[in-house]
Amino acid sequence: MQNQTIFFKNDIKIENTATIVGPKEHEGPIGRYFDKFVKDDLLGQKSYEKAETKLHVSTIKYLLNKSGYKDGDIDLCLMGDLMDEISGCNFTMRELDIPFMGVYNACATFAESLIIGANLLDSGNFKRIICSTSSHFSTAERQYRFPLELGNQRTPLAQWTCTGVGATLLNRENGKVKIDCATIGRVIDYGVTDANDMGAAMAPSARETLLSHFEATSREPDYYDLILTGDLGEAGHRLLILLMEEKGVRLKDNYSDCGILIFNRMGQDVGQGGSGAGCSSSVFNSFVYKKLVCGELNRVLLVPTGALVSKTSNLQGESIPGIAHAVSFERI
Amino acid sequence: MQNQTIFFKNDIKIENTATIVGPKEHEGPIGRYFDKFVKDDLLGQKSYEKAETKLHVSTIKYLLNKSGYKDGDIDLCLMGDLMDEISGCNFTMRELDIPFMGVYNACATFAESLIIGANLLDSGNFKRIICSTSSHFSTAERQYRFPLELGNQRTPLAQWTCTGVGATLLNRENGKVKIDCATIGRVIDYGVTDANDMGAAMAPSARETLLSHFEATSREPDYYDLILTGDLGEAGHRLLILLMEEKGVRLKDNYSDCGILIFNRMGQDVGQGGSGAGCSSSVFNSFVYKKLVCGELNRVLLVPTGALVSKTSNLQGESIPGIAHAVSFERI
Repeated sequence: MQNQTIFFKNDIKIENTATIVGPKEHEGPIGRYFDKFVKDDLLGQKSYEKAETKLHVSTIKYLLNKSGYKDGDIDLCLMGDLMDEISGCNFTMRELDIPFMGVYNACATFAESLIIGANLLDSGNFKRIICSTSSHFSTAERQYRFPLELGNQRTPLAQWTCTGVGATLLNRENGKVKIDCATIGRVIDYGVTDANDMGAAMAPSARETLLSHFEATSREPDYYDLILTGDLGEAGHRLLILLMEEKGVRLKDNYSDCGILIFNRMGQDVGQGGSGAGCSSSVFNSFVYKKLVCGELNRVLLVPTGALVSKTSNLQGESIPGIAHAVSFERI
Repeated sequence: MQNQTIFFKNDIKIENTATIVGPKEHEGPIGRYFDKFVKDDLLGQKSYEKAETKLHVSTIKYLLNKSGYKDGDIDLCLMGDLMDEISGCNFTMRELDIPFMGVYNACATFAESLIIGANLLDSGNFKRIICSTSSHFSTAERQYRFPLELGNQRTPLAQWTCTGVGATLLNRENGKVKIDCATIGRVIDYGVTDANDMGAAMAPSARETLLSHFEATSREPDYYDLILTGDLGEAGHRLLILLMEEKGVRLKDNYSDCGILIFNRMGQDVGQGGSGAGCSSSVFNSFVYKKLVCGELNRVLLVPTGALVSKTSNLQGESIPGIAHAVSFERI
């Protein structure tokens, strides 16, 4: 078999990060780690689609601003979101004078953007690359489920799409955190057809990627201070622990999930927890990155997971394939 | 400003290509260059979405087969299509044991996949990468326009989405054609809102990318035996010539467009010509690649263009941003 794991030849460093989230995410347990939040998730726009775009534009501009760069200093934006044709990103990039390549692996997109970005920097052909993803509760609900106006009841295994954007500025010169290696996932489908049970659809792909990562790196789960899937939610998180045990690998207390961290499941009525392409990116670029920088964490494995479903495929009775990529971060 | 053009340090070579198209594409002027074609574009499936997936799976399997490789010999598939959430690719990759990263820049996706693939190979972290895109007339019509059953009349500036898949196997060892450099485009929006006039929406981005490419490479249009945009169609092609003239650059007889080449506009009732993410990939991987291999062409600049539109954005009255990336090929 091909080797799915890449060890970068150069230090691929995080120069800076930025996050902006919605009001519910701000009220959650890691709310104070986000750079900014909005009080009104419509952001004064005429549609939630425009609101998500505005959130994405603001995050990139804020990242540039806090890093002291202009558009022309950035070689490339690698971006994705959950809207059909990743249209939030397309309209975001209309506002910026930066070359653009769109990426899509559902809620695993942030990992995909980091892995491509790190490789492009490793090639020596680029200087600074921004990797970012966004999601918005209201654009996702309308597109994948029901109009909000229907007030539909949510099923017990459902998750709550995060409203948020996380952006990472990668380079080879400056930074206290580096990406040392990454594992690219394959598409795994165990036949789950319930679009409200994303955790079950994605957990098998997370297992496959984790097993491949541990084998290629000769590392054990204990090697990391934190292993963070995203976004399996509570049920998916428990399922992954069982699936890993089946293969003789025990995930212990250093294992959590971005969808669990971002909300307070008991008090915020979010079902199994957070989800969305902006979940892992907003959790990583705030809470995790800041803990890496200050030394509370030294080694983190981020494993964003994606449910490769569309409204059409779901209505046509297709099952939901999953994908997961792993990115290993180290404090320098 | 940032440099949008990358000169690869290593020879990034095309080891092999594969194309499979629909019956209408086979009947077109370059029909005999495609590897295979299907007589029935439903491919015996229950939906056109499943048909497009089957076409994509078949093309990748055929490419592996003719190259003497198994799934495990390929490090990565970089793929995109026009279906919401690029779901044709997701289901395609369910059938293959190859790591997967989905890409999306509308009909410029094939160029995006080649540029990422070439950079990943240049980094030395990968051995063999497949870049491919698909489109299908009937999945695109339903999603972006109207149900086929309505029998809507087409407007004069409309194009005809190609049914086809083109796949390129890149590596650093073997091949008679190399990618020597590439220019990554930015998102350009001149305010076109007519989703049936894609050529006008995309031509400004093609100009921006071409001007940037010529400046960075110090090449003139004459440097290339063939400059091939895709898919501006006839009207967009004429518009680009005018837009370039405005900037003092004359595109001459060595300039054509994938959407013009693939159909016979007079006899096939295709409006301004072909379009779709599978148009530039099927034209390049058949006609262009074969002419490069046999020496009829030595230098080709492929400039796939994408209209960054979704059904939702269009209904919300958004204009249509365009993007274009340029990839320069040389016979070795």
